[in-house]
Amino acid sequence: MDFNDFPYFLGMAGTVAFAVTAVLAVIPKGIDLFGACVMGIITAIGGGTIRDMILDVEVFWAKDLNYIWVSLIASIIAFYGNRLMTGKKTYKLMLYLDAVGISMFLIQSARKAIDLDFAMPVGPVLLGVITAIGGGVTRDVIAGNPSLLMKKELYAVPLTFGVVLYLFLLQLFPEVPPTIISTSCIFITFLIRASAIHWNLQVPKWMLLRQ
Amino acid sequence: MDFNDFPYFLGMAGTVAFAVTAVLAVIPKGIDLFGACVMGIITAIGGGTIRDMILDVEVFWAKDLNYIWVSLIASIIAFYGNRLMTGKKTYKLMLYLDAVGISMFLIQSARKAIDLDFAMPVGPVLLGVITAIGGGVTRDVIAGNPSLLMKKELYAVPLTFGVVLYLFLLQLFPEVPPTIISTSCIFITFLIRASAIHWNLQVPKWMLLRQ
Amino acid sequence: MDFNDFPYFLGMAGTVAFAVTAVLAVIPKGIDLFGACVMGIITAIGGGTIRDMILDVEVFWAKDLNYIWVSLIASIIAFYGNRLMTGKKTYKLMLYLDAVGISMFLIQSARKAIDLDFAMPVGPVLLGVITAIGGGVTRDVIAGNPSLLMKKELYAVPLTFGVVLYLFLLQLFPEVPPTIISTSCIFITFLIRASAIHWNLQVPKWMLLRQ
Repeated sequence: MDFNDFPYFLGMAGTVAFAVTAVLAVIPKGIDLFGACVMGIITAIGGGTIRDMILDVEVFWAKDLNYIWVSLIASIIAFYGNRLMTGKKTYKLMLYLDAVGISMFLIQSARKAIDLDFAMPVGPVLLGVITAIGGGVTRDVIAGNPSLLMKKELYAVPLTFGVVLYLFLLQLFPEVPPTIISTSCIFITFLIRASAIHWNLQVPKWMLLRQ
Repeated sequence: MDFNDFPYFLGMAGTVAFAVTAVLAVIPKGIDLFGACVMGIITAIGGGTIRDMILDVEVFWAKDLNYIWVSLIASIIAFYGNRLMTGKKTYKLMLYLDAVGISMFLIQSARKAIDLDFAMPVGPVLLGVITAIGGGVTRDVIAGNPSLLMKKELYAVPLTFGVVLYLFLLQLFPEVPPTIISTSCIFITFLIRASAIHWNLQVPKWMLLRQ
Repeated sequence: MDFNDFPYFLGMAGTVAFAVTAVLAVIPKGIDLFGACVMGIITAIGGGTIRDMILDVEVFWAKDLNYIWVSLIASIIAFYGNRLMTGKKTYKLMLYLDAVGISMFLIQSARKAIDLDFAMPVGPVLLGVITAIGGGVTRDVIAGNPSLLMKKELYAVPLTFGVVLYLFLLQLFPEVPPTIISTSCIFITFLIRASAIHWNLQVPKWMLLRQ
């Protein structure tokens, strides 16, 4: 745990975003403080937990409890401060933080799978996407909301693009330090997702069914 | 497996309660006997299975198949005897048995996490709560019912209180035999939850949002 | 991985069926291509992944990526070709392929549990059924559809019958080569399920509640 670490702070920002969006999603259902905290924590750590169970390694939050504390505190603040957060501006901020989170978790998880030489080259892609969306899908399923996978927003596309790009770049430029490639791919994934939020981009028509 | 063991019988009572409440929850959806049994078993062993997968240890029911047999038989009886069980008195009894189950599973799981020195001190709390509610959440999600986490009943609160108290007491009184502390905390958790059932207690207002 | 292997091809046919039925199930919800592929893959590999996590062994698709590729390609074809597939004849074909898949996965998983001597004799039955229905339940839960466990179709019954028969035959005829017993039980399970599809068989009345 290195507090001077920029990626570490980004990961925590993503954790905050996941917890907060989860609490905001379940508040209209009339949840109490404890339920909200459980939902916030499960959403924030759910994706990575599924990843680590599939990889058969120790769950990541067992080694660094900050993930739990940060999700807990973020959930409490989101619960009591929900009026502020559902304000349009704060909601947009949350969407951007969520974009930071999924971009980070996507590349981090792919990295973890690569380091373990897990089911190359499909494993890193699949685990990256599962980690990034796992928490959110769990949140929607427990809350009884339509899953984010079912929406027409550009959500799964930037993730898939970002992680496939990551694998290609690692392969094509073995001499470039991996950290530079990781950071670039996190940034690119975030940029596509952020553009989708900013300009309200929809999934291209050929990816939808003409009904 | 020790049939003279009082906690063991309590754990089985909890297993029965989990299986029965699951079957009663899905019967209005028009389920058949086999589906009901699968639901009953998944609910009864679901929470502990998730816990053991996170802890990366052998699932508890692999060592003691009684958990499966008891859930199976309880599910069959609940299925055919559902008219009796939905009676107000039997339903209340089920709620109390469920309270026994969650109190037992809560402290047992915290104990297991402590013994494995897993992510102290947050791990035992989180795993305790996840085990206690895991089966019920799975049940509600598969049945398409609103999750128990979403209800205003005093459910998550006694659990969190009980397991945090457990950790505090273990820390404060190292000279007291752990079994006494365990039993006390199971009893206290049950007592709070049972009071909530008996007097129909709701979550305190400051834990809800003034809407 | 042996392409000349008949069971291997059957398993792949089952994988195709699982992916395709998943995509067809979520298309009415207005999903895009990427979401459809994620749903298809999760449904196709979900049951086996849960099984391997419970057995605490490496997930099956890590060793043989064909499972992922086949689900991916099947999902894409199902997505764009959905008009053809929802045709009555193709839909029936899918139901039969699904029957092949669940019969295969059922017996394969029971076999795997037996080989690992896991929680005999209940473990193989439970893991067989969980693997066979796991993907489909996950699909229905994420898609927000009523779970297949809740339907009155003869679905869980042939599975339970097939896997219990498998264990009995292995016990009664130790001198018969296991492959013959496996193949017979896959065939019998498929036959019962296929009869249920063909003659639209319902769960026997004593397995339902007289309401």
